[in-house]
Amino acid sequence: MTHASRPTLGVGMVGYAFMGRAHSQAWRNTAAFFDLPCTPAMVALAGRSRDQVSAAAERLGWASAETDWRELIRRDDVHVVDICTPGDTHAEIAIAALDAGKHVLCEKPLANTVAEATAMAEAAGRAAANGVRAMVGFNYRRVPALALARGLVLDGRLGTIRHVRAQYLQDWIVDPDFPLVWRLEADKAGSGALGDIGAHIIDAAQYVTGDRLIGVSALLETFIKERPIAQASAGLDATVDGDDRRGRVTVDDAALFAGRMSGGALASFEATRFATGRKNVLRLEINGSAGSLAFDLESMNELSFYDHTEDPRTAGFRRILVTEPSHPYAGAWWPPGHVLGYEHTFTHEVKDFVEAIASGTDPEPSFADGLQVQRVISAVTHSAAHHGAWTAVE
Amino acid sequence: MTHASRPTLGVGMVGYAFMGRAHSQAWRNTAAFFDLPCTPAMVALAGRSRDQVSAAAERLGWASAETDWRELIRRDDVHVVDICTPGDTHAEIAIAALDAGKHVLCEKPLANTVAEATAMAEAAGRAAANGVRAMVGFNYRRVPALALARGLVLDGRLGTIRHVRAQYLQDWIVDPDFPLVWRLEADKAGSGALGDIGAHIIDAAQYVTGDRLIGVSALLETFIKERPIAQASAGLDATVDGDDRRGRVTVDDAALFAGRMSGGALASFEATRFATGRKNVLRLEINGSAGSLAFDLESMNELSFYDHTEDPRTAGFRRILVTEPSHPYAGAWWPPGHVLGYEHTFTHEVKDFVEAIASGTDPEPSFADGLQVQRVISAVTHSAAHHGAWTAVE
Amino acid sequence: MTHASRPTLGVGMVGYAFMGRAHSQAWRNTAAFFDLPCTPAMVALAGRSRDQVSAAAERLGWASAETDWRELIRRDDVHVVDICTPGDTHAEIAIAALDAGKHVLCEKPLANTVAEATAMAEAAGRAAANGVRAMVGFNYRRVPALALARGLVLDGRLGTIRHVRAQYLQDWIVDPDFPLVWRLEADKAGSGALGDIGAHIIDAAQYVTGDRLIGVSALLETFIKERPIAQASAGLDATVDGDDRRGRVTVDDAALFAGRMSGGALASFEATRFATGRKNVLRLEINGSAGSLAFDLESMNELSFYDHTEDPRTAGFRRILVTEPSHPYAGAWWPPGHVLGYEHTFTHEVKDFVEAIASGTDPEPSFADGLQVQRVISAVTHSAAHHGAWTAVE
Amino acid sequence: MTHASRPTLGVGMVGYAFMGRAHSQAWRNTAAFFDLPCTPAMVALAGRSRDQVSAAAERLGWASAETDWRELIRRDDVHVVDICTPGDTHAEIAIAALDAGKHVLCEKPLANTVAEATAMAEAAGRAAANGVRAMVGFNYRRVPALALARGLVLDGRLGTIRHVRAQYLQDWIVDPDFPLVWRLEADKAGSGALGDIGAHIIDAAQYVTGDRLIGVSALLETFIKERPIAQASAGLDATVDGDDRRGRVTVDDAALFAGRMSGGALASFEATRFATGRKNVLRLEINGSAGSLAFDLESMNELSFYDHTEDPRTAGFRRILVTEPSHPYAGAWWPPGHVLGYEHTFTHEVKDFVEAIASGTDPEPSFADGLQVQRVISAVTHSAAHHGAWTAVE
Repeated sequence: MTHASRPTLGVGMVGYAFMGRAHSQAWRNTAAFFDLPCTPAMVALAGRSRDQVSAAAERLGWASAETDWRELIRRDDVHVVDICTPGDTHAEIAIAALDAGKHVLCEKPLANTVAEATAMAEAAGRAAANGVRAMVGFNYRRVPALALARGLVLDGRLGTIRHVRAQYLQDWIVDPDFPLVWRLEADKAGSGALGDIGAHIIDAAQYVTGDRLIGVSALLETFIKERPIAQASAGLDATVDGDDRRGRVTVDDAALFAGRMSGGALASFEATRFATGRKNVLRLEINGSAGSLAFDLESMNELSFYDHTEDPRTAGFRRILVTEPSHPYAGAWWPPGHVLGYEHTFTHEVKDFVEAIASGTDPEPSFADGLQVQRVISAVTHSAAHHGAWTAVE
Repeated sequence: MTHASRPTLGVGMVGYAFMGRAHSQAWRNTAAFFDLPCTPAMVALAGRSRDQVSAAAERLGWASAETDWRELIRRDDVHVVDICTPGDTHAEIAIAALDAGKHVLCEKPLANTVAEATAMAEAAGRAAANGVRAMVGFNYRRVPALALARGLVLDGRLGTIRHVRAQYLQDWIVDPDFPLVWRLEADKAGSGALGDIGAHIIDAAQYVTGDRLIGVSALLETFIKERPIAQASAGLDATVDGDDRRGRVTVDDAALFAGRMSGGALASFEATRFATGRKNVLRLEINGSAGSLAFDLESMNELSFYDHTEDPRTAGFRRILVTEPSHPYAGAWWPPGHVLGYEHTFTHEVKDFVEAIASGTDPEPSFADGLQVQRVISAVTHSAAHHGAWTAVE
Repeated sequence: MTHASRPTLGVGMVGYAFMGRAHSQAWRNTAAFFDLPCTPAMVALAGRSRDQVSAAAERLGWASAETDWRELIRRDDVHVVDICTPGDTHAEIAIAALDAGKHVLCEKPLANTVAEATAMAEAAGRAAANGVRAMVGFNYRRVPALALARGLVLDGRLGTIRHVRAQYLQDWIVDPDFPLVWRLEADKAGSGALGDIGAHIIDAAQYVTGDRLIGVSALLETFIKERPIAQASAGLDATVDGDDRRGRVTVDDAALFAGRMSGGALASFEATRFATGRKNVLRLEINGSAGSLAFDLESMNELSFYDHTEDPRTAGFRRILVTEPSHPYAGAWWPPGHVLGYEHTFTHEVKDFVEAIASGTDPEPSFADGLQVQRVISAVTHSAAHHGAWTAVE
Repeated sequence: MTHASRPTLGVGMVGYAFMGRAHSQAWRNTAAFFDLPCTPAMVALAGRSRDQVSAAAERLGWASAETDWRELIRRDDVHVVDICTPGDTHAEIAIAALDAGKHVLCEKPLANTVAEATAMAEAAGRAAANGVRAMVGFNYRRVPALALARGLVLDGRLGTIRHVRAQYLQDWIVDPDFPLVWRLEADKAGSGALGDIGAHIIDAAQYVTGDRLIGVSALLETFIKERPIAQASAGLDATVDGDDRRGRVTVDDAALFAGRMSGGALASFEATRFATGRKNVLRLEINGSAGSLAFDLESMNELSFYDHTEDPRTAGFRRILVTEPSHPYAGAWWPPGHVLGYEHTFTHEVKDFVEAIASGTDPEPSFADGLQVQRVISAVTHSAAHHGAWTAVE
């Protein structure tokens, strides 16, 4: 079958900032590396500003631009809606798109509240009955090393899991004069480090272990209470207005929580934007009765694995370079040892999403998974507001 | 001044197992590497079994043996009593020795309860008034890399400290059939991972930051509830009786707690004996507004330091190999790059203790420091028993 | 200026195997990440098999296909010819393209012999006089970490360079039954590890230091003299014919040489395909009177830098994560800490090539640079054939 | 058997600088950690200055002092002579001691010339016939990780060895004003980096592989030709006279050579004192058809091992922490994960030497081994003097 004879899958995307650029890259490249059952067409990009969205569409490879996401959803040539906007808009767009029969890929966190996430999961449930698919963008599940980690757990190589140690450490707001961007405002972002990067480690830990967090005891902290008003921002960078106005930071700078997993493991989580010198450290370490795993996103092509069944004389943590043909996703790329970068977590996400659509199966992580992460976040917030009191995840 | 013209400091030691062997090494070697103001003489070793203590004395370099520690304390040629026994005996021996005018070096944890530790700190206070010194053996303060870390904090190189991340990970009881050694019995050991290795990271974190833990929220877990009765044990190794008798494990296998430091930092602590593949990993990571530090005891000659004041173009965590003449303790040893091992944390401890005795100053960590660690342990235990409820350290 | 208003640069590519896939990715994506002065259009792909080249064109994003590279060169809509074929064909295609007024990007090694490379450099010289540009694809110059390394040397941060240590270690032919692919045949590949991966470290070492190799003393070795005939190959992978025919390996498996650099440094080079477990390790270490650098391609987002002017108390090799906005190329991508992969060395190469074309400047590395590397390879071959006799690089 | 009932082995040592301090430590401690068949007694220390040798003896634990090594050899209570002086004195002392029936432990390099080393090996041969033992102090054979490496090679875990990569990198004379210490004078030290640290990697590579170097092609370099006259030196440190006198450096600063091993492997060696930032990096990497090993002395408790027989999905270099009871020497020390330092390479050396004496077997490395290393050094020097011409090791 040539590409030409394959059905086309029209994609419309909402938002074109950090996540929009990353998703565009994925839509632009997936078919060149993976044998997809249908061929994605980058039909339209939606944004509020006509000039900016048009320029972005041209630059990022979208065939047209829309200034209202409702128009995007209405288009017949759009079969998939990819949502890359801040969290406060996810629910409205996703529910509308699903109800209109569009498959939806929605960036994480799924929503800013459990209520929104519940409505979205319900919409996804209704849509699934009609063959419409929904997926939440916990892209790190598609890091080959973490997909391999999941595989090793499934193969029983870790035995009974005793400990999970998860950290997501960044440092981009250490400077007290870094401005008050939308990610620091509760009404847009829902929470701070907790929902932005904490959500990633919650999902990653649950995905790799196959267990769920059943309860938590948490602390939240906002080290810098007020910041200059932001003028413009892009990615994690921003500029400040000339004047001296400062606004209140309404989200957490750091979140710290201990928990118990459904399988009996103890778990510790930390998400912070104040870990000076740690730019994008997502560490995950898992200890089981038969083996252990360790991972760091800054070295994302490596998985560290300890096999406790080996002779102690030669046992040791192995650095598996996850670039072999037998490793998840890696066979589609380069010869062994030729590493991949951050953006291909999205390329892999798109590949899996497109395959799920074509095969009529529900992709993972589902909106229900996104909702469950939201419930963990809610339990963390509740515990922190009650002096660390143990709080069950509902 | 030749060694011969220096006063002799008679030392008596109680206990000759793991810690006794380590301390003996220190007493045997310190004067060969450091210019001590007085010369330690290894006068006598005390233990209960005549045969065993005599053999140990001969092997470890002690001039004589005693079968009752009370006799050791009574000897005029013993000026220092070094206590290397399990925690349940510390208070009685230490208080008796101090009251008898002997300087005391006591292994950590200082005691098994706050009550005992309080009595010991009071005895140390009384003794200090008479020029008698007491020190608790948190030997990791004498790892050159951690002493350097303390120095960098004191120099302001970290700025305001935001995060402390401390883990002590071992795996020696992962096997459910590992026997019930004294370290797994509450009446002898006080607690499990918490008091044994958790005490080390509590002290290390407080020492390096100069801050105190003011409150905690904790979880404790005993994964394996019953174990075979131990026949004999040495160090962290043991053998099992032939029969099938099992006894109840009365201490924690793992301790996990979050806390706040007196300076405003968030802190996370984890101590476990179930981190498969982690043999003796003591990790300490500290993030401040001006820089960060990271350390791992398995690579104990290295300190990782990030200087946030550097140009981002060349900033990065540096691996400082702590073997330079200008590094703490290192000048007494070998040329740069020639690394030291675990046992010299004790060598350095003895050096500092002997110098404090000679100069008439109170050594650190003091019994009061040991008591404060005991209070943290007590708060952890209390919080864990109350579902993670926030518990102030008194 | 919108993209639409920018001139279009028509690109034709020859070859679509490993390098062709990598270059296609670059042409497909560069304009989405970098503000290019003109917009590349992927006009046509050339290959010998109609079916295969058409399928590849469709998959990789080329608008049309040609079965004769001469036709490609003749097309008016092709302004750039990108040569991704084996080394024995480079000279003919490149010279024809340059003489036809097409800018040429040619994969490394520039050619299989000094004679061919000389003719190519001469053609590039003629073309340059007419504003036509030529560049050889030593893509690792565009690893941000190596570009930063070059910058640090230029800034004087290394002082006088004393040592260069360069290794390129792979292991894909360790198995004696791995088939005799074209990379193991001298008539197609010119040489083995030497020209394939040795060329990379020769160029990288000279690029970063700014010095040239002036003489070498070398050993070459072919460990496995005969191998099964290959049926098909892709990338570094291949399958074997059913029968038992074996053919002679006519290239080196490993090359080892010592040399002197024009600035006085001693240099050691090793290129091998028999370093079991080393998948794609390109290590470069440089020691100077004022500092040192170390790099490993398997951790390509990191540069290790030692600043000898620092206080020894805090000096140490720093791991610079080369993802800051101020780092070469990095600002166009993701926030700090979000790493890049192998393929973007080509993205950066295309960016620099397009900018050179637009600005009318000669890009680097030039064909003259490629010729000089070929001269080093020739000197190595000569020395190895004469028992390691010192051989000047002409 | 108690220690007391074991025979005593009287030890006399010559020299008390860097190596003398290290050996003293070994003699002082070996019996406390290992069950030795006889008990070493530190009988006497010899040196030229009465005051200095007496002070050193007291400090280092020697019972008496001699100002003439000939007196030391004459003493009946001295059964072992340990030679820790510069290389130009080794032959005379060692031959005299052996001929007097004393067992000899001689620091490396065995001698400064092949002629001296030959005479020493002959003396050792004569002595062996009388039950007198001789050993050369290539102490790194007693790094547990390198002893384990040797074991893995012997077990066939590496298969056919293809590559040896050995580097010994230091930086203590990078500063052109570092003084002209004895290690920089050919008449005392024989050679520079080559004989001092190059000898170590020659021995280590041959020991671990079990193969011999059969030929070499070499470069030597002295970057700094003249240096200030040294006033006093200790270890690798020194001070300079007030005046401006400079003397000629008569040894190499760096040695670089390629070679072939008797088993067919290619080998590269580099020894330098100009690797800025590398304090004591002894790297050894070995690639075989079935596996690979890597080691770095700055992380001396770790051995990196790649097992090529593993499934590629989980294969990777393992970091073996060489502190398990089943690892060479490690069982005598601390629990797993408690690391050892540089000085215990000597402790292990003494243990093996004493056991060989007691059991009447010839210890390794023998004087013949030391002579063979000297022959390699001689071949390197010859090749370097002949522009890298291939030179067989005789």
